[in-house]
Amino acid sequence: MKLASICPMNGAQSLVHTLLAAGVDVCFANPGTSEMHFVAALDHIPGVRCVLGLQENVVTGMADGYFRIAAKPATSLLHCGPGLANGLGNLHNARRARSGIVNIVGDQATWHRPFDAPLTTDTEALARTASDWVKTSTRASDVGRDAASAVQIARRVGGGIATLVLPSDASWDDGGMVAEPLPDLPAPPIDQHLVETAARILRDHGASTLILLGGTGMLEPAQNAAWRLASATGADVMGEYVCPRMSRGRGRVPLNRVPYGQAAAQQALWRYSHIILVGARPPVGFFGYPGQPSVHHNPATIFHTLSRVDQSPDHALTQLCDALYAPAAAIRDLGDRPVAATGTPTPEGLAQTIAALMPENAIVSDESISYGRGFYQHTFAAPPHDWLHLTGGAIGDGLPLATGAAIAADGQRRVISLQADGSAMYSLQSLWTQAREKMPVTTIILSNRKYEILLNEYATVGATPGVTAMNMLDLANPAIGWVNIAKGLGLDAARAETLEECGDLMRQSFQNQAPFLIELMI
Amino acid sequence: MKLASICPMNGAQSLVHTLLAAGVDVCFANPGTSEMHFVAALDHIPGVRCVLGLQENVVTGMADGYFRIAAKPATSLLHCGPGLANGLGNLHNARRARSGIVNIVGDQATWHRPFDAPLTTDTEALARTASDWVKTSTRASDVGRDAASAVQIARRVGGGIATLVLPSDASWDDGGMVAEPLPDLPAPPIDQHLVETAARILRDHGASTLILLGGTGMLEPAQNAAWRLASATGADVMGEYVCPRMSRGRGRVPLNRVPYGQAAAQQALWRYSHIILVGARPPVGFFGYPGQPSVHHNPATIFHTLSRVDQSPDHALTQLCDALYAPAAAIRDLGDRPVAATGTPTPEGLAQTIAALMPENAIVSDESISYGRGFYQHTFAAPPHDWLHLTGGAIGDGLPLATGAAIAADGQRRVISLQADGSAMYSLQSLWTQAREKMPVTTIILSNRKYEILLNEYATVGATPGVTAMNMLDLANPAIGWVNIAKGLGLDAARAETLEECGDLMRQSFQNQAPFLIELMI
Repeated sequence: MKLASICPMNGAQSLVHTLLAAGVDVCFANPGTSEMHFVAALDHIPGVRCVLGLQENVVTGMADGYFRIAAKPATSLLHCGPGLANGLGNLHNARRARSGIVNIVGDQATWHRPFDAPLTTDTEALARTASDWVKTSTRASDVGRDAASAVQIARRVGGGIATLVLPSDASWDDGGMVAEPLPDLPAPPIDQHLVETAARILRDHGASTLILLGGTGMLEPAQNAAWRLASATGADVMGEYVCPRMSRGRGRVPLNRVPYGQAAAQQALWRYSHIILVGARPPVGFFGYPGQPSVHHNPATIFHTLSRVDQSPDHALTQLCDALYAPAAAIRDLGDRPVAATGTPTPEGLAQTIAALMPENAIVSDESISYGRGFYQHTFAAPPHDWLHLTGGAIGDGLPLATGAAIAADGQRRVISLQADGSAMYSLQSLWTQAREKMPVTTIILSNRKYEILLNEYATVGATPGVTAMNMLDLANPAIGWVNIAKGLGLDAARAETLEECGDLMRQSFQNQAPFLIELMI
Repeated sequence: MKLASICPMNGAQSLVHTLLAAGVDVCFANPGTSEMHFVAALDHIPGVRCVLGLQENVVTGMADGYFRIAAKPATSLLHCGPGLANGLGNLHNARRARSGIVNIVGDQATWHRPFDAPLTTDTEALARTASDWVKTSTRASDVGRDAASAVQIARRVGGGIATLVLPSDASWDDGGMVAEPLPDLPAPPIDQHLVETAARILRDHGASTLILLGGTGMLEPAQNAAWRLASATGADVMGEYVCPRMSRGRGRVPLNRVPYGQAAAQQALWRYSHIILVGARPPVGFFGYPGQPSVHHNPATIFHTLSRVDQSPDHALTQLCDALYAPAAAIRDLGDRPVAATGTPTPEGLAQTIAALMPENAIVSDESISYGRGFYQHTFAAPPHDWLHLTGGAIGDGLPLATGAAIAADGQRRVISLQADGSAMYSLQSLWTQAREKMPVTTIILSNRKYEILLNEYATVGATPGVTAMNMLDLANPAIGWVNIAKGLGLDAARAETLEECGDLMRQSFQNQAPFLIELMI
């Protein structure tokens, strides 16, 4: 770490050394002209795995998927304001997932920026819309220090999107200084008054209380603690709809999420007199609707915040277990593992088939949108696995998430990517990276050839879509041929019309250390 | 236009009526949940052609291409902040092209926004980075008035990206009022002192003066006036590198643009003692380089602004012609039309083949990046055509531009889309819209399977790329199969290894009212 004092280096080199010293050793990249010194530094300093994405939203989505599985940040490398703009959708999703990313945006040289060259735009303004921290390093000597700060933010409890804007002269100028890693920011401790309040609520009103888990509260340790509380007090446990990653399958708590739709969410939440929030927020609708409330709970429900998003749900729940003397609680038997379904594809049948066939310790990336709303109940008895969701509603994250998750697992875990066709089109370039990196990702395209969620919404407007509306809602003209697209991007692929065919293709794919795409006609 | 007083309507309906009254009758769309009332209004009120794009950057790029050919604005319809973010790259390019677009972004209901739903982001902040005008209509009764203002901005001389943010309650609430079209904003008149100064410079220093054309100054009327000046005074004429559309081919002035590269641009500009700017700006580099100046001109060069970007270049040049009594000037014979080239593809051979085969009045959309730097000199003697360029450096605009230009020409003009493979990947979804709309677009993918421009840049860093760098610069692993991708998106396509094959495929394609893709191995 005393490299800077031994040999002179430029800002880009100090950046790579600083990242490596802080344990950040994966870079998802779509570089451009102004990042060449950084690319050269990555080339000359061994230790960083660089993964190319062919569009920026693929890059940021991969970094999000990487964090959700690795539980540590990677860097995303983007080019100038417009390159950042292209990647903002999945940066938004990552922020809503509370992921940590060191997002590096190469930009114009500081002295060139005033000339308003064609590519120049307000990079910092763009960055602020989807970042928790934004800094422009204007001198080579600042780059290392700023990078260490960015890593510190990206590693904090509750997540952090740290965008470091790197003007090209700060990259190429000499004077780079490697910075020591900064200590992890401590999560604020759990307030004992809140623990006592929650304990009292559970003791007195357990049967009408919901423990609502958010963020890492949906991983196994917090789930288990919540289950102890539920078993001891009669409370229910649920996860937020916005779910970056849930530990699921046999041996795990059979947890449901708050439903997506207004009516279903209200129905699920209405009966609770108290809701204890563990890294969660009071549930709100994705959208407002005429005459409908924005929130989903009964107005008489009282909320209690046990822990905030920047605190540890594990600590909070353990302390609450202690306060209640809640004993260890067995998780009820989840019944037999489902068997693969047959016949015409249905959501239930597909979920059963996935549960029947998925290998141990798989990762599911779920951007199935409307088709996947009922997948959970048929997959509780599957082998243990992790399930990743679209968190911020910016569609087009399923394929990149799957790719980044596979990289995080270093190809050692099967990734099953359940992907609606409409949203798949937003970041289909991800498939190429899966092929390039030879990642074991099995993508199942749910091909219904329309924007089903929008047709449902259109129905709520109270009208039958005419020609013009269907022109904006149907995808059947021309039909998108996913097998051809996948082959064009370097993957093997095949179409399935029935669940038997889908199951056979899944079995084959699960045996190969390579990506595969199944176009399932639903 | 008195509809509002006759029958009550919601904000969305007032928007559609207002747009139609102002002559805006094409809507490029990628709608989402919060835009369903607008979609319903488009469905029920006849007159707007709606064109679906499967990703937002396709939508904004099509709107840009539409404007460049139709010379009037269309609307682009996007969904919430992240949808806008996805479309910002090509909105940036459109702004640099000085195009006019009425960019409508559906958003959360005003009263739902404070709940910070998952999809909520700072839509206005995003919009400001690539817009000339941003307004959120917070009430149904404001929508018509605001839409009329947006159209006025989008129609002004010098272009305008007008972003109208439309909360869903402003869309669905009753109380919509149709607004009369606002008058076109007058372009500021040309200053007579500047005309006289330019006339004196041309009289006294004609042989060392450059007339530099920008924006619509590169269309035929301004070209011809500039040619008269050049013929009368010995001055040179050139176009800006940033070129939204150039009138080209036989009978047009054989105009060159300022070159892209620093050295070539300096060489082209160095000898001029005076540069007269006609809707142009002093040329600057796309990027700064160590030890290099940001500008390209000789420090001794004196600039004279004849007209600004918000003024009419035609008026400016006509007045200057009058001041100099410059007579009509014949355009020199451009020689024989080139014949189609044969053998291994080269930039020169491809340009000759295009010049040899293109139909009369074609449109060329050029995102050929490094391969296309020399296309101009071999296409001067082609039939008359329009040539569209990437203006803002945000790659991924070639395919959408081609699509929008074809819509603007209502399928009556052949569009030739010269497209580098790397940048094609950013908005390949455009091909599907070409197929859906049955547009006569012939795409030639220049398949070199690497980021050639970045390899050139990397060389200037002074190093040979190693494994890690090539991991971020080469696209050959796996090879992208454009024929398969095109077929998956509903197009016919074929591969060409030689210029004869490419020529044969072009001839076939030019006879069909349908899109076609040629993967040219270069």
